[in-house]
Amino acid sequence: MGVRRRLYEALAPEARAPGTGLSKTNLAIVALVLVSFLFLALETEPVMTAQPVWQQTFAIFNISVIAIFAVEYLLRVWTAGEDPQYRGLSGRWRYITRFYSLADLAAFLPELIVMVTGAGTSLLVLRVLRLARLVKIARFIPAFEALGAAMKRASSLLYTSLALAITLVYVAAVLLYFVEGIGGNQQDAFSSIPRAVWWAVATLTTVGYGDVYPVTALGRFCAGIIAIAGIGVVALPAGVFASAFSDELRERELAKLKQELDDVRSEETGQ
Amino acid sequence: MGVRRRLYEALAPEARAPGTGLSKTNLAIVALVLVSFLFLALETEPVMTAQPVWQQTFAIFNISVIAIFAVEYLLRVWTAGEDPQYRGLSGRWRYITRFYSLADLAAFLPELIVMVTGAGTSLLVLRVLRLARLVKIARFIPAFEALGAAMKRASSLLYTSLALAITLVYVAAVLLYFVEGIGGNQQDAFSSIPRAVWWAVATLTTVGYGDVYPVTALGRFCAGIIAIAGIGVVALPAGVFASAFSDELRERELAKLKQELDDVRSEETGQ
Amino acid sequence: MGVRRRLYEALAPEARAPGTGLSKTNLAIVALVLVSFLFLALETEPVMTAQPVWQQTFAIFNISVIAIFAVEYLLRVWTAGEDPQYRGLSGRWRYITRFYSLADLAAFLPELIVMVTGAGTSLLVLRVLRLARLVKIARFIPAFEALGAAMKRASSLLYTSLALAITLVYVAAVLLYFVEGIGGNQQDAFSSIPRAVWWAVATLTTVGYGDVYPVTALGRFCAGIIAIAGIGVVALPAGVFASAFSDELRERELAKLKQELDDVRSEETGQ
Amino acid sequence: MGVRRRLYEALAPEARAPGTGLSKTNLAIVALVLVSFLFLALETEPVMTAQPVWQQTFAIFNISVIAIFAVEYLLRVWTAGEDPQYRGLSGRWRYITRFYSLADLAAFLPELIVMVTGAGTSLLVLRVLRLARLVKIARFIPAFEALGAAMKRASSLLYTSLALAITLVYVAAVLLYFVEGIGGNQQDAFSSIPRAVWWAVATLTTVGYGDVYPVTALGRFCAGIIAIAGIGVVALPAGVFASAFSDELRERELAKLKQELDDVRSEETGQ
Repeated sequence: MGVRRRLYEALAPEARAPGTGLSKTNLAIVALVLVSFLFLALETEPVMTAQPVWQQTFAIFNISVIAIFAVEYLLRVWTAGEDPQYRGLSGRWRYITRFYSLADLAAFLPELIVMVTGAGTSLLVLRVLRLARLVKIARFIPAFEALGAAMKRASSLLYTSLALAITLVYVAAVLLYFVEGIGGNQQDAFSSIPRAVWWAVATLTTVGYGDVYPVTALGRFCAGIIAIAGIGVVALPAGVFASAFSDELRERELAKLKQELDDVRSEETGQ
Repeated sequence: MGVRRRLYEALAPEARAPGTGLSKTNLAIVALVLVSFLFLALETEPVMTAQPVWQQTFAIFNISVIAIFAVEYLLRVWTAGEDPQYRGLSGRWRYITRFYSLADLAAFLPELIVMVTGAGTSLLVLRVLRLARLVKIARFIPAFEALGAAMKRASSLLYTSLALAITLVYVAAVLLYFVEGIGGNQQDAFSSIPRAVWWAVATLTTVGYGDVYPVTALGRFCAGIIAIAGIGVVALPAGVFASAFSDELRERELAKLKQELDDVRSEETGQ
Repeated sequence: MGVRRRLYEALAPEARAPGTGLSKTNLAIVALVLVSFLFLALETEPVMTAQPVWQQTFAIFNISVIAIFAVEYLLRVWTAGEDPQYRGLSGRWRYITRFYSLADLAAFLPELIVMVTGAGTSLLVLRVLRLARLVKIARFIPAFEALGAAMKRASSLLYTSLALAITLVYVAAVLLYFVEGIGGNQQDAFSSIPRAVWWAVATLTTVGYGDVYPVTALGRFCAGIIAIAGIGVVALPAGVFASAFSDELRERELAKLKQELDDVRSEETGQ
Repeated sequence: MGVRRRLYEALAPEARAPGTGLSKTNLAIVALVLVSFLFLALETEPVMTAQPVWQQTFAIFNISVIAIFAVEYLLRVWTAGEDPQYRGLSGRWRYITRFYSLADLAAFLPELIVMVTGAGTSLLVLRVLRLARLVKIARFIPAFEALGAAMKRASSLLYTSLALAITLVYVAAVLLYFVEGIGGNQQDAFSSIPRAVWWAVATLTTVGYGDVYPVTALGRFCAGIIAIAGIGVVALPAGVFASAFSDELRERELAKLKQELDDVRSEETGQ
């Protein structure tokens, strides 16, 4: 077995039999991505960036990660030839323009360019592109694929409940704007509908930061009615999605178990 | 086909075969209503009304919308004659006094009158009437009709759970009024039962703004018990409605699919 | 038909055929109780008690309500004789010592005594006894009876989930007490476990007033983990009760419909 | 029946027939553990420790509890010999190294050592070990065992929904860090991603303390979208666990009832 074949099997998730889990190389990549997210967070913390030791650690870590992901990308492109559908120049082009391959590229190229050209000031915005590394993990976790399926499955229910939730938020905001902003004496928090929308979202999702709330008796009466009547309705879209997602996952697990059972049975029959 | 017929088909949702979606004219009206809601919100924002450019934009937009909705209304009344049940003078009267037609009228007439007579100061209150435009959209979205059906379907459960929720809020308020308002030293927030009701609603819906909360040990003990025991109960009516609404939507979708299947089958049999 | 019989049918809910609803007298009593709760709330509001007009209104209303409930009580005791099981002196005694009759008594007697003897200062605490009027309504609403049945039905699940919720609150409080109160610098909010329990309840029920929250990095980390992991668990008892209550209501409605159907059928067979 | 046998039956939960509940000795131990938790909480309250009376009460109570649990531990080890599998020296060793026996030891030994050696200053940290007493109760409550079973039953769904929730929290934090921390003027609350994570957790769990919230228009817009879309998703893991736990409990109860029914039947057949 050539080097390319062995590398292909270590890198490509589709090279492995289903149910055998991730290869060690891919596990390491997942771990590296998770650590890179942790470092992305720590890197923005003034308490840490104030210490030269951490600054250096961040710099070294970032360069290492970019180097590793660059090498990984090149190896993936090279070894893709093991898969018949990606053979030849046009096959490679098809591989490179896949969504996953583009995400692999976005995971290191922008920062690499900035690093080489030395345009350090705009680096901040580029960091967001590191979120593309999420896709690197998503590829290995079948459940993340279930996200899209869950949204599709419940799409009609999802859109309707979302429309209802937004309507309720809007109507609540208009109501409180007239009662508190015009009728009351809250010149700032309810002084316009967009500001009242902020209150309505915070209230109807039950977050309730407490930066904005009605103070007049009538405003509180309306807000109380809205809160009791509307909470479940605004939570509806997220609840619909959550339930569709958990249904989808359960079904996939069932299908996987069935598949494994069938495999075992057909093996037994074959003997 | 005459002009009136073509206009009728462009305007009346019932003129189209089920499952073919909205006509382009109606899609434009829905979009216009949504934009008019966005502008209604922006119009109240002091930051925007301070700029003459936006003031002019709002004025022009409002006049245009009122003009368009006026023309739309007249056309709808004129073309209603295409429908046999609205033919003749008495038919038109029946059409005009329909709920949807009245909402169409409320969507532009009050503001038009104010604009023509120049009574600009009371314009503010008239803006709430723009919420009647919601009905303009609701007509095209069958799901909004499901709202009423969902409330009817769960009505008995809804009223009972609402009564239970309100009872709980009231009892919690009375309890905390005695413990915190009379027994404690919170002279303002818990100084009367109506004020304590505001606390009870904010707590039992888990909004928790943080403008009012018990400070004595006994008050916190009672509030803790109430919070753990009562949260699900106060969320019950909204949850009952949300679940009835999503059941209703699912059933309607199923009925629609069945209808389409039957149509296909009867067509096949007919051939 | 004698006066007593007619009064009995107007007062006793068990005198009427099922499904015929409340008598007009009882509807009036329910309305009076609801209004008395509204007035109980308003009576404690300093803004209203400051006005002599309202003070007088409250006084007149309270005297009227007490008089009406006293008369109602006497009539109920008198007419109870129409029911064979409450006939005679020992029957009356059995009637008077029923839970519902005692609540009827508690709804007016304490305040009547205070009013007659003129011991006005302790009147405040007696007002809580007006909550006994809740029982006056509960008698007419079969759903309130379902409350107890729902608690019984889910009792084992309810106690276990309650125990789990309380354990979680306690462990979270102990953890944050050590991390924030001892390790951090929050001398007040987390300075003892009972105070940390207040934080834990407010957080795990998602009320989150914002009067107490961790400020150290470690405290926030722990609080975040606790919040994500624990929210559903603390909401479990209330959710279990809410679902048992709605199941109970649905079953009762079904049973009532079945009963009515059987009645119709047996009538048809009888003819 | 010897003393050891009688003590064994009073102490070991497995010595009693299923369905007969706890022995009086064990009920007393459960009560003592619950009271010791209450005292652990009160002991940290400055208001109480300031009074010499309470200080003495706490000291006496703690010494008593430690003495009782020490005696209980020794008796348990001694009487374990009644169970064939724990007979002899190696049997006792097996008994002592059980999880439950180690928890019994941790419930008093550390504090006993500190008390004897007089190293009073570090006593504070040792108090956390008192949480080991939770295990003392857990042994008697079969439902606590169901916790682990529920987690296992829903493990795959639990991990996936947890991963999704954490991803959402992270992405929300990164987004708000860029919008509010870099783009806005909130130098403190959103000045780094870890700080923004604190906001994201408080918002997506709907706790919403109100110590951190976006103030710019764009930040509030993003926060509103995140709140409406994400609330159900972050509540998913806790909801999944809660539902698995309640399913597990229901099944166990059913299995217990079935077992009892079978016992009754086999007894009847045997007669």
